[in-house]
Amino acid sequence: MGGESSVHRSCQIESLTWPEVRDAVARDAGVIVPVGATEQHGFHLPIGTDVVLPTELARAVAGALDFLITPPLMYGCRSRPLSGGGQSFPGTISLSARTFMSVLEDVLSELLCQGFRRIAVFSWHMENSNFTYEAAALAIEHARLDDARVMVHDDPAGAPSEATMEELFHGEFPGWDAEHAAIFETSLMLHLRPELVLMDRAVDDNSPTHPPYDIVPPPKSFIAPSGTLWKATQATAEKGRLIWDEMVPRVIDEVETALATARAPRNR
Amino acid sequence: MGGESSVHRSCQIESLTWPEVRDAVARDAGVIVPVGATEQHGFHLPIGTDVVLPTELARAVAGALDFLITPPLMYGCRSRPLSGGGQSFPGTISLSARTFMSVLEDVLSELLCQGFRRIAVFSWHMENSNFTYEAAALAIEHARLDDARVMVHDDPAGAPSEATMEELFHGEFPGWDAEHAAIFETSLMLHLRPELVLMDRAVDDNSPTHPPYDIVPPPKSFIAPSGTLWKATQATAEKGRLIWDEMVPRVIDEVETALATARAPRNR
Amino acid sequence: MGGESSVHRSCQIESLTWPEVRDAVARDAGVIVPVGATEQHGFHLPIGTDVVLPTELARAVAGALDFLITPPLMYGCRSRPLSGGGQSFPGTISLSARTFMSVLEDVLSELLCQGFRRIAVFSWHMENSNFTYEAAALAIEHARLDDARVMVHDDPAGAPSEATMEELFHGEFPGWDAEHAAIFETSLMLHLRPELVLMDRAVDDNSPTHPPYDIVPPPKSFIAPSGTLWKATQATAEKGRLIWDEMVPRVIDEVETALATARAPRNR
Amino acid sequence: MGGESSVHRSCQIESLTWPEVRDAVARDAGVIVPVGATEQHGFHLPIGTDVVLPTELARAVAGALDFLITPPLMYGCRSRPLSGGGQSFPGTISLSARTFMSVLEDVLSELLCQGFRRIAVFSWHMENSNFTYEAAALAIEHARLDDARVMVHDDPAGAPSEATMEELFHGEFPGWDAEHAAIFETSLMLHLRPELVLMDRAVDDNSPTHPPYDIVPPPKSFIAPSGTLWKATQATAEKGRLIWDEMVPRVIDEVETALATARAPRNR
Amino acid sequence: MGGESSVHRSCQIESLTWPEVRDAVARDAGVIVPVGATEQHGFHLPIGTDVVLPTELARAVAGALDFLITPPLMYGCRSRPLSGGGQSFPGTISLSARTFMSVLEDVLSELLCQGFRRIAVFSWHMENSNFTYEAAALAIEHARLDDARVMVHDDPAGAPSEATMEELFHGEFPGWDAEHAAIFETSLMLHLRPELVLMDRAVDDNSPTHPPYDIVPPPKSFIAPSGTLWKATQATAEKGRLIWDEMVPRVIDEVETALATARAPRNR
Amino acid sequence: MGGESSVHRSCQIESLTWPEVRDAVARDAGVIVPVGATEQHGFHLPIGTDVVLPTELARAVAGALDFLITPPLMYGCRSRPLSGGGQSFPGTISLSARTFMSVLEDVLSELLCQGFRRIAVFSWHMENSNFTYEAAALAIEHARLDDARVMVHDDPAGAPSEATMEELFHGEFPGWDAEHAAIFETSLMLHLRPELVLMDRAVDDNSPTHPPYDIVPPPKSFIAPSGTLWKATQATAEKGRLIWDEMVPRVIDEVETALATARAPRNR
Repeated sequence: MGGESSVHRSCQIESLTWPEVRDAVARDAGVIVPVGATEQHGFHLPIGTDVVLPTELARAVAGALDFLITPPLMYGCRSRPLSGGGQSFPGTISLSARTFMSVLEDVLSELLCQGFRRIAVFSWHMENSNFTYEAAALAIEHARLDDARVMVHDDPAGAPSEATMEELFHGEFPGWDAEHAAIFETSLMLHLRPELVLMDRAVDDNSPTHPPYDIVPPPKSFIAPSGTLWKATQATAEKGRLIWDEMVPRVIDEVETALATARAPRNR
Repeated sequence: MGGESSVHRSCQIESLTWPEVRDAVARDAGVIVPVGATEQHGFHLPIGTDVVLPTELARAVAGALDFLITPPLMYGCRSRPLSGGGQSFPGTISLSARTFMSVLEDVLSELLCQGFRRIAVFSWHMENSNFTYEAAALAIEHARLDDARVMVHDDPAGAPSEATMEELFHGEFPGWDAEHAAIFETSLMLHLRPELVLMDRAVDDNSPTHPPYDIVPPPKSFIAPSGTLWKATQATAEKGRLIWDEMVPRVIDEVETALATARAPRNR
Repeated sequence: MGGESSVHRSCQIESLTWPEVRDAVARDAGVIVPVGATEQHGFHLPIGTDVVLPTELARAVAGALDFLITPPLMYGCRSRPLSGGGQSFPGTISLSARTFMSVLEDVLSELLCQGFRRIAVFSWHMENSNFTYEAAALAIEHARLDDARVMVHDDPAGAPSEATMEELFHGEFPGWDAEHAAIFETSLMLHLRPELVLMDRAVDDNSPTHPPYDIVPPPKSFIAPSGTLWKATQATAEKGRLIWDEMVPRVIDEVETALATARAPRNR
Repeated sequence: MGGESSVHRSCQIESLTWPEVRDAVARDAGVIVPVGATEQHGFHLPIGTDVVLPTELARAVAGALDFLITPPLMYGCRSRPLSGGGQSFPGTISLSARTFMSVLEDVLSELLCQGFRRIAVFSWHMENSNFTYEAAALAIEHARLDDARVMVHDDPAGAPSEATMEELFHGEFPGWDAEHAAIFETSLMLHLRPELVLMDRAVDDNSPTHPPYDIVPPPKSFIAPSGTLWKATQATAEKGRLIWDEMVPRVIDEVETALATARAPRNR
Repeated sequence: MGGESSVHRSCQIESLTWPEVRDAVARDAGVIVPVGATEQHGFHLPIGTDVVLPTELARAVAGALDFLITPPLMYGCRSRPLSGGGQSFPGTISLSARTFMSVLEDVLSELLCQGFRRIAVFSWHMENSNFTYEAAALAIEHARLDDARVMVHDDPAGAPSEATMEELFHGEFPGWDAEHAAIFETSLMLHLRPELVLMDRAVDDNSPTHPPYDIVPPPKSFIAPSGTLWKATQATAEKGRLIWDEMVPRVIDEVETALATARAPRNR
Repeated sequence: MGGESSVHRSCQIESLTWPEVRDAVARDAGVIVPVGATEQHGFHLPIGTDVVLPTELARAVAGALDFLITPPLMYGCRSRPLSGGGQSFPGTISLSARTFMSVLEDVLSELLCQGFRRIAVFSWHMENSNFTYEAAALAIEHARLDDARVMVHDDPAGAPSEATMEELFHGEFPGWDAEHAAIFETSLMLHLRPELVLMDRAVDDNSPTHPPYDIVPPPKSFIAPSGTLWKATQATAEKGRLIWDEMVPRVIDEVETALATARAPRNR
């Protein structure tokens, strides 16, 4: 979904040559694994939204620290009606949880095997949570290394400051579950990748009921007809900029804290 | 862990004979699957706490509605330091996520196969979340039934009312993650199963850091030395009663709402 | 299924706190894993019979030696008509063999990982046989320890003495396969947990045919209508006492022999 | 392992052409799956003994009834010291139980898919027991057919008559577990395939201890140094003939009984 | 890896909204699954080459016919020394075959489930071959549909005409195995995505030996030090254009032939 | 499928005793794993053809070098219409790819565990390709040995010399895919095992179309009605001798080259 500038060549592994990766390992660079989903995001956002956002975030972090970025995991776990609309929307293509965990475990194992010791997983899709942790735990167990560390971040978006929350929601925050294809994600996309947003098609919507449990198969009352779970029309690029400008430095700080001390650099 | 009164004979499948289960299916009774964990709960609570609590809750619900209760899933998913102390505590015995999902899927499939159509899963252990949903979704998919419904409740404890929260925490609520073997769970155990609580050993504790992400293998700063992640000494049986008296009617209501309409009774 | 006295607090892990388990590991205590099933046991015995009996046996052994007991495996392998009535009885809830083996392997691996080196598996359900051994073999292989030992006991009930056999069956012993929910098990339950037996509903029954092979799907002639495969009405608490008083010392002896020499105690 | 006469061309699928199999399906012929192992059989019997014997038996049955024979499953489950010497003998090549079950399930599924409705599994290797049943049950479940039947015979050798037992063991019968590479199997091989027996190397042996439970890893006292678990030197071809002449008609009768009525012939 | 023009919005699912996918299904559009790898491609080509090329081909086909394109499978199967350099190059990140097959099977199952009936798999990475077919066969088996068709193309690049072969290789064609990161792929990348090629770093290379079998672990003589298995320096954009101009119409024709008749359009 | 002479006793493990295997390991003998399939081979060749041929080749190699031979893998991967006729022919009994890989990985792991360090896999069935390599790679990874080597030969038949090709095909070579149950295989069987060939039933045939891609489910035009994919009637024993006399020395040479240097013999 295009538009990478040349600066990205230096951090996305799919754009690099293998000697560049070899050199990154040699200097103990870290590596970020963006984990997304192929999931409906309402009438107005692209199905790849959950891949775009963690990849953009990975770029921002990798640009600030010395990190590479793996090809993103483009398919995520089973969409649930109350947080992503559920599996009934055409274009939502999910993996079973076992497959998803195998993919992430395999990718992490390969990174560990090649010498990476500081790895961050950025998962954007709420339904991936816990599966990411299990995969990371299995990869670490099997690697039997004592100097490796995997940061598992299931919610890198995090919570904006109170002031920003007020700016975004004007007191009507519906809970993060429902913030799917709504103000938060739409604003970020308008800020970061406006060419992918069909803002004129955005609607406000929600599921008729939103209980604290789930039901399978989902009753109709759990499903927002548009796939947008809250007020997409209130999104703006400016709100996106606000969120982003808070999020990026926070995540950079978290990654530094989590992975700074994995080992002393090799060459010293 | 003992002490069931005779009333329980009428709802716990392991205490019943098969004709009693046959009759329950025939009258379209529901069934609850309590899902727990075998996990440290500090110096003062038994390792089976996460089995005791959902089973007690299941009993309360089954006593009010016409539900049976399956034998509990006594083993849960990998304990995480920031919500359960992690895997380093002796006595914490966990299943891999794949195994856990297989157990729950198999049990649900058997229940569906035998004719149960209204099934509730009560999981108490936070680390089981999402794995429960996947297992339920797989069981439903494979059953190819159109009149069955599985309610997946990963947080049946839910949130107490504001007044109760104030009573419990006096404004110092640490977040639900940290409420492990602390005020909430200890109070419930003091109310429901005081003979299993060694209150004189209870301590207040927490992990030195509590970031919004995880790391594997966990750094020491993520692990509370006692296994209690907050202020266990502030627990009382009275607080337990407060929580319980709010929780039980709410969950009864949720189960009724979620599973009331699965199908018309067979005999009419 | 209730009624544990305080003495059990000292050996059942679900009732203990983690420091108690830590101390047990430190003094090289052993650990018993009771493995059962959730399976019909006729008109008169509870569906949890195969969990109750190995757990009671584990308690007797653990009380005599220095052993802990894990939470029981409450679900066992697919019931077979000729030894357990088969899968067609409501309330019989089984795991697939793969799931069952995964559970047992995971539990054993966790015990080995936490430092237990002398482990006994007591399985009561005949259909679990061989699956238990495979799981134990896999756990030992993967642990790569040289001082650990797992005893796999698929038939801890064993064979009573000739005199007791005569007392029990008066020359009409049908073979152990058919001794399901019949004289042997019913007598033991009457001796150990009489409150769980509905003796007035007990019947004598058997499958019309009982060949030395199996057929899937099972023909009707393989299935005893009541789920009892032999003469339950001949069971008495006194017969149960006879069996038990022979069984317990024998199993204590077997466990001591099998696991006594796994390693020298740590503290010397 | 050689020596098949032309009569076998008519029943072993590997020797037939596909139109011959098509015709067999069309006339509702049955099919036997011989299941063996690649396992040491002492100093004097070939490692393939557990494949040779069920295959010979299958031939005898197929020759009497209208059955084909699939290629044998040449690899079986993990050898156990007390019934097969265990995994420490060079030449014993086993499958994990999961793999073994997958092979048998796949083969049965293919047979069902091609139209066979009367299938017999003859397993000779004691360690395969129960895994065979699970595989058959899974194949039948997944096939969703209502006219298919799989006979699972884990012990087709069965028990000889009392007279023959006396002839064979002269009152010293050690139990079937220990009858590995000893009087029974050696006699059969001398009768059926004498060219594969190195009788001059046969020894009498047994494991120093033979308890009613197993231990992993196995203690030395569980392992017979020669791999023969009882008195091989007492085997004779004449004893083999005695066994065989009793066994074959009994098994033919069992197969007929078990599989005679699966469905009406197609052409009527 | 950037640069997509707006025309691509109309066919790549990650850029579309779900109503656009719904409409495509409704009009019986086909869908292409590009399958690649994350694998070293010498000193001069990006690690994502095997993703770029099938995706570009999918775009060309989708532009000519009415097809959508799923997000590519960015990770492929284990690299082999004689066809891709092998696993020892940093930046080569592969999935185990089981994981790879699960991903493809899951994606195909989702597409079938959502109503797509004409699906093409374009795999560029030679090591994916056969695994793609198995995954497709499993997806089709499990879907139990009778109007769906999956085309599995393991070699969409195919063989150029004799004239083009002569133009490309001047009689020195080394076999397709060795054409990794060499004349063929480099020329295509120079034609299609020149900004990703570091042509000044290209070298000619090969493995010291190239036998018709493989060895694990690979001997050094199987590995070309640069990762390029033939003469990359002879690649030109013009050669790439030649290949492309032959390949695209051929593949369009193949897709049309293979998938044209899956079913009658829904709306007639 | 019979007829082995006594010389084979010295190399086929199923015919040997375990001390003979022990001695072979001690002198660092190699071992060959013949991998075949149970697959239709036209009107005239036996369904076990793909087992017979690699086993015969293994015997020829083992007779020339110091190698043992394991029991063959008699079941292979899913037959594909364009190379083996596909799954629709009665008598074609295949394993899923996962099962097949598990079998081969288990067998290789056992051989490595018992001390074999020089292992060759001869697979005759084209559809097994790549699955064999994955299995071997997994076995080597898990064994963590540094002196073991597995040769994976997916095409030991290889390509005859140009002169022989001309002799065989008279310029009409259809590609190796189509050489199923045709001139090449039939000639070899006539040379090696003429008693298994029903030459009077041989026909010339092919699939109506033979495109460079596959489709599932296969269209009828991909399937040759007889199961023979080319001109079987042109096969002769003399052509078989020509092929064989070229093939055997070449493969002996390949095995020697591939596996000669795995380690120094143990006893020197």
